[in-house]
Amino acid sequence: MKLTTNQLQAQFQALKENRLFEFFVIFIIIISALEIGAKTYTLSESTLKLTQFLDIFITLFFLVEILIRFVAESNKKAFFKSGWNVFDTLVVLISLIPIDDSEMALLARLVRVFRVLRMISVVPELRILINSLLKAMPQLGYVMLLMFIIFYIYAAVGSFLFQSINPVLWGNIAISMLTLFRVMTFEDWTDVQYETMEVYPLSWIYYLTFIFLTAFAFLNMVIGIVVNVMEDEHAKARALEHEGEPTLADLKVEIRELKMMISELKKS
Amino acid sequence: MKLTTNQLQAQFQALKENRLFEFFVIFIIIISALEIGAKTYTLSESTLKLTQFLDIFITLFFLVEILIRFVAESNKKAFFKSGWNVFDTLVVLISLIPIDDSEMALLARLVRVFRVLRMISVVPELRILINSLLKAMPQLGYVMLLMFIIFYIYAAVGSFLFQSINPVLWGNIAISMLTLFRVMTFEDWTDVQYETMEVYPLSWIYYLTFIFLTAFAFLNMVIGIVVNVMEDEHAKARALEHEGEPTLADLKVEIRELKMMISELKKS
Amino acid sequence: MKLTTNQLQAQFQALKENRLFEFFVIFIIIISALEIGAKTYTLSESTLKLTQFLDIFITLFFLVEILIRFVAESNKKAFFKSGWNVFDTLVVLISLIPIDDSEMALLARLVRVFRVLRMISVVPELRILINSLLKAMPQLGYVMLLMFIIFYIYAAVGSFLFQSINPVLWGNIAISMLTLFRVMTFEDWTDVQYETMEVYPLSWIYYLTFIFLTAFAFLNMVIGIVVNVMEDEHAKARALEHEGEPTLADLKVEIRELKMMISELKKS
Amino acid sequence: MKLTTNQLQAQFQALKENRLFEFFVIFIIIISALEIGAKTYTLSESTLKLTQFLDIFITLFFLVEILIRFVAESNKKAFFKSGWNVFDTLVVLISLIPIDDSEMALLARLVRVFRVLRMISVVPELRILINSLLKAMPQLGYVMLLMFIIFYIYAAVGSFLFQSINPVLWGNIAISMLTLFRVMTFEDWTDVQYETMEVYPLSWIYYLTFIFLTAFAFLNMVIGIVVNVMEDEHAKARALEHEGEPTLADLKVEIRELKMMISELKKS
Repeated sequence: MKLTTNQLQAQFQALKENRLFEFFVIFIIIISALEIGAKTYTLSESTLKLTQFLDIFITLFFLVEILIRFVAESNKKAFFKSGWNVFDTLVVLISLIPIDDSEMALLARLVRVFRVLRMISVVPELRILINSLLKAMPQLGYVMLLMFIIFYIYAAVGSFLFQSINPVLWGNIAISMLTLFRVMTFEDWTDVQYETMEVYPLSWIYYLTFIFLTAFAFLNMVIGIVVNVMEDEHAKARALEHEGEPTLADLKVEIRELKMMISELKKS
Repeated sequence: MKLTTNQLQAQFQALKENRLFEFFVIFIIIISALEIGAKTYTLSESTLKLTQFLDIFITLFFLVEILIRFVAESNKKAFFKSGWNVFDTLVVLISLIPIDDSEMALLARLVRVFRVLRMISVVPELRILINSLLKAMPQLGYVMLLMFIIFYIYAAVGSFLFQSINPVLWGNIAISMLTLFRVMTFEDWTDVQYETMEVYPLSWIYYLTFIFLTAFAFLNMVIGIVVNVMEDEHAKARALEHEGEPTLADLKVEIRELKMMISELKKS
Repeated sequence: MKLTTNQLQAQFQALKENRLFEFFVIFIIIISALEIGAKTYTLSESTLKLTQFLDIFITLFFLVEILIRFVAESNKKAFFKSGWNVFDTLVVLISLIPIDDSEMALLARLVRVFRVLRMISVVPELRILINSLLKAMPQLGYVMLLMFIIFYIYAAVGSFLFQSINPVLWGNIAISMLTLFRVMTFEDWTDVQYETMEVYPLSWIYYLTFIFLTAFAFLNMVIGIVVNVMEDEHAKARALEHEGEPTLADLKVEIRELKMMISELKKS
Repeated sequence: MKLTTNQLQAQFQALKENRLFEFFVIFIIIISALEIGAKTYTLSESTLKLTQFLDIFITLFFLVEILIRFVAESNKKAFFKSGWNVFDTLVVLISLIPIDDSEMALLARLVRVFRVLRMISVVPELRILINSLLKAMPQLGYVMLLMFIIFYIYAAVGSFLFQSINPVLWGNIAISMLTLFRVMTFEDWTDVQYETMEVYPLSWIYYLTFIFLTAFAFLNMVIGIVVNVMEDEHAKARALEHEGEPTLADLKVEIRELKMMISELKKS
């Protein structure tokens, strides 16, 4: 029996949409995650062999799965337009590269870790969650830019003033920004402060204004997200609530018509 | 005088619903809590004897109380369908097991601590609070899963890269996840970071991206809860506001009827 | 010229409501606050004398001011029904007690610090703020109780298990609760955790569940406040929006009346 | 060809509003920011020369740009009424002051850092963000005042009680306020607490009440902002929603008119 391309595509489509197949893919991703976790422990020789065997099996399974999904897609160009498909293909392709070199072994391991991210591309609810997070990003762009400007200015000032006091914390603008991020998370920020206050007793102004500015900008960001999310929800709720119901304008039209009818009555 | 089962049930029902009885149960739970607290101090011989006596009394009281509630229940099967009843029964039964062994003494003490939780099962307001918390849980399920995936991937990467630097913090994937939880709470996270930055100078990227991702996912979770709670409140408020009031659609019907009447008038 | 009590009351009432007098009272409170601040520095002999003189002046001024307010009040009983008046009177009376003893000097100082709180009782906006905070309190009562139960149970368990490991942190249930509060603020909580994990390797479960439970209860409290505040605002907004405007029910009545009129028309 | 002032103004206006010119200004600001960042690194002799040349170029460019904007403005008085213009002019003027003295070199550098803030005055979206932040400020004024009072009172009490225990942390009221800010950020606050608890075992009450009060006031502030922002959004949404639509009051008027018409019909 010879299968035409169309028949093959239809069969793969059916397979792809089969719930059992879906669960099996999730099962393999979990196995793959557990294998990665297991590798962080010191393993016996025999278990190591098993993980190597598993590695090959999982790589092949993922390759087959992605091929099935590719064949099942009727529009081949559309397949790569989905960011999730591109991501899946990349993860599978990179893990196919044979790595013998012991130095590259670490890299190979790291690439395999990203297989766990396939969990997100497979479970639709997680995909929706990530998409909604990405959609919220651009709205936050300007607050992020403002925060970066605050960081940049304070890092430059900090670097100019405190470089000679502690080059490990204030050596250059990049290191200073890392130190300021630490101050923003309140992580031992008083140690940083007391050190500079010995030379510049007024340097507490630097830290306090920085903490207030970043806290305020951060708060603004959070409130921005909350307001956006709520507005969306309200808009949905309102749309739903009034659906199918007449508006006040509709009623006004009706009353106008009544008036016309009575006017006609009068004339007759 | 002989009591029939029904009479007994009715009497116990009355007793169970008596406000004085309720307050007495709460009083005994508070006594039980205080006794547990007292045991954490070094006590004199005589006070120790008193607590042992109290222990027996409280255990018996709780046993009697649960029996009363069981007898008072007309539908015996329904009794064990309530999670709170099952919980109460378990706590009482376990504290009945006689423990002589000194090693088990600690376990006996721990079980008695859970008696304090009976406070929640007895005070209805606290029961409502817990129920509403449990109801919010499943909605947060997918954000929790996403957060777990982020933790798992970062823990695997951290374990592969930093295991040789500090096995106490990055020994295996489980230890790494605990270390990452510590980083998420900003607890001395820079100490962890500076240590790995000596070997991998770019490892600050690892920490910063982790903090951003988890903070963002956490924020998303919080906003999720807030939005859910508010939607519920709004829905309730809307339902209450418009209750008994005619809708715009009702008014439209009325106006239509008016038109009909006028049309009839015209014809006549 | 002899003043009757009523005339005196009216005059004092006018004085009390004079904006200049109000500003002067605020000015004296600020002076009193600055004096308290100044006393924390090492002062020269002459400045010390000045502060002693100031102390007497401020005490007398506050005494006179409270007397004016008392006399100005027409209903003497109502005066002490206001918590703010009682507070003011207490602060003034206590600072009148002569303290010669050097040991009591510290106490005298502390009492004078509370004069700064009079700022709140004098500025109406701050009074409103505090009142709204106090009004929100009872609604939070049950969440607070739940949080206390969580703290109590964990403190009891912590005390039983970790007492022998570090009595300074887990000596008894009170000390344990303080240690747990520290864990909740994430203050060096890993130091506490690593210490107990050496004896009980699974004790991380204790800390993680505690952090999750308290964070969840805290979140619940915050959301509770937000929802309450918002509901109030919405209720106000709705009341304002529809004020003076007819409701849908009003319109329905009007349309019914129209129908009656047309029916009568028909009959005639 | 001689240009009249008006022609010059029109031409500069056109230049100012040219998008390419706008992007070029932003580009120069970014270059200026990068130059400031570069200066925090140890530079070679030749690069240092380059930055000196760049400094002169950027200073002149900013001078020319501000002159163009000034000339382009038809109403010269209005120019200095905008806070952003005043800010820009000040930054440019200060960076014009020639500084040869090596001691002032640091100050010159610091002034140049503020050039980066011009980013905010140039990008309209950032300007809107800052304006909305400034607008929210006065509403928070009283919560800020309340928080300051709490800080002041606790700092005075802390200074009186703990001065002799650790003058570095509690030396005077100013130092105490800094220490309390540290406690509010939970930064090693238990170290501060354990130290004073050795002398005053009950001093944990001081810290716990302080943390609760400030956390509560802070929460109040955050909620205040959220509610304000949301109210604004709702007001906007409501205004938009009902725009052009008749109100219930309009409908009532229409129905009244109907009744009048029917009454007239009856009479005739």
